[in-house]
Amino acid sequence: MTSRIQAVIFDAYGTLFDVYSVAAAAEQQFPGHGAALAELWRAKQIEYTQLRSLSGPRGERYRPFWDVTADALRYAAARLNLTLTPVAEKRLMDEYTCLSVFPENPPVLRALRAMGLRLGVLSNGNPQMLDVGLKSGGIKDLFDHVLSVDAVRKYKTAPEAYQLGPDAFGLPADAIVFVSSNGWDAAGATWFGYPSFWVNRAGWPVEQLGVTPQGMGRDMRDLQRFVEALTGARA
Amino acid sequence: MTSRIQAVIFDAYGTLFDVYSVAAAAEQQFPGHGAALAELWRAKQIEYTQLRSLSGPRGERYRPFWDVTADALRYAAARLNLTLTPVAEKRLMDEYTCLSVFPENPPVLRALRAMGLRLGVLSNGNPQMLDVGLKSGGIKDLFDHVLSVDAVRKYKTAPEAYQLGPDAFGLPADAIVFVSSNGWDAAGATWFGYPSFWVNRAGWPVEQLGVTPQGMGRDMRDLQRFVEALTGARA
Repeated sequence: MTSRIQAVIFDAYGTLFDVYSVAAAAEQQFPGHGAALAELWRAKQIEYTQLRSLSGPRGERYRPFWDVTADALRYAAARLNLTLTPVAEKRLMDEYTCLSVFPENPPVLRALRAMGLRLGVLSNGNPQMLDVGLKSGGIKDLFDHVLSVDAVRKYKTAPEAYQLGPDAFGLPADAIVFVSSNGWDAAGATWFGYPSFWVNRAGWPVEQLGVTPQGMGRDMRDLQRFVEALTGARA
Repeated sequence: MTSRIQAVIFDAYGTLFDVYSVAAAAEQQFPGHGAALAELWRAKQIEYTQLRSLSGPRGERYRPFWDVTADALRYAAARLNLTLTPVAEKRLMDEYTCLSVFPENPPVLRALRAMGLRLGVLSNGNPQMLDVGLKSGGIKDLFDHVLSVDAVRKYKTAPEAYQLGPDAFGLPADAIVFVSSNGWDAAGATWFGYPSFWVNRAGWPVEQLGVTPQGMGRDMRDLQRFVEALTGARA
């Protein structure tokens, strides 16, 4: 491989795992409100991670992603006037530990490895959540490094979080493609210095942040084509 | 006045100014979509400020609030499949410069001054936006300090932004009540060390961030009662 690209790092929630699969469980618990609850839960989860890191430059407001996820669920339920019993909360949080993997992901991950690329995960999720999720999804063994922001107590899009990738792989950021389905994460990774790829599953507009991911597509197969073009390789 | 409290600082957008008054203008431009556009515009505006500050610890991703507001409008329109002509964009951005002041605010501000308290504004807005807005709202002269995060190129909830208050007033944070209608801002101010008051105009649940504002109410009259109780004063 003559390309500078040596590794590919993936965001986990929304990118490897389908976070909206919890909507079905939410709908079971709260008929007629599942989609709204899942959407607000996810939005608050992200907002809380960012607020905690922005308010705590030395990690002093950090709490693990599992706790932030539970906080976000409680807020979302209250905002929608849904009574979240301990049983319902446990049922929904349990769902978060065994999210579905998007079906095209395992073959694409294997194809990238066959191209000689090293693979990693860089996630807001705390190590235990990631370990359980990747194992239950059957994709854990495909990754050389599973990196959690927990190590630096700063959530994405803090530079310290993205720095975990170059540190683990021993490569400069511009030798690692960063893949996320979250527009804000792709923007943050690009700002940091990764060549980034936005898996725009929902077909949303590009975030207006004055920065554009190097590649975009609708699913992980488009990522594979992007990496093939970038490296001149064919799986 | 025997109380430690010497000053009150107000957030601007959503607290002094009614940001949802732009929904009417949005509805005029895009019949049937005004409320959705105004809501998404506001959400993206806040998100973009936080992302820029989280990704740029030295202010290197900072752009003035006016520009971020225009970026957020463009994103929101695109996401809702609304064609934002230059004329429509100008019409909506113009609306942002002359937002309505909530009707109870001027008498409450005067009452607080009559209690011997010094007043300030601490806003994400850039200085020119704040100046025009406070003047057009007829409340500029009520404030001893109008502080913009532009001075530190970090948006709230970064500690450097909140530090502008103590620096301008020459007071410790715990001698200044910080008032915001944004739950995340009230939480950030509390983390920073201000006694905070959340003007919860929408009747939303408390943010699940592990921190609770010292006072809460539905409008600025409730703030006045809170400050009276805190200081033992009566206007």
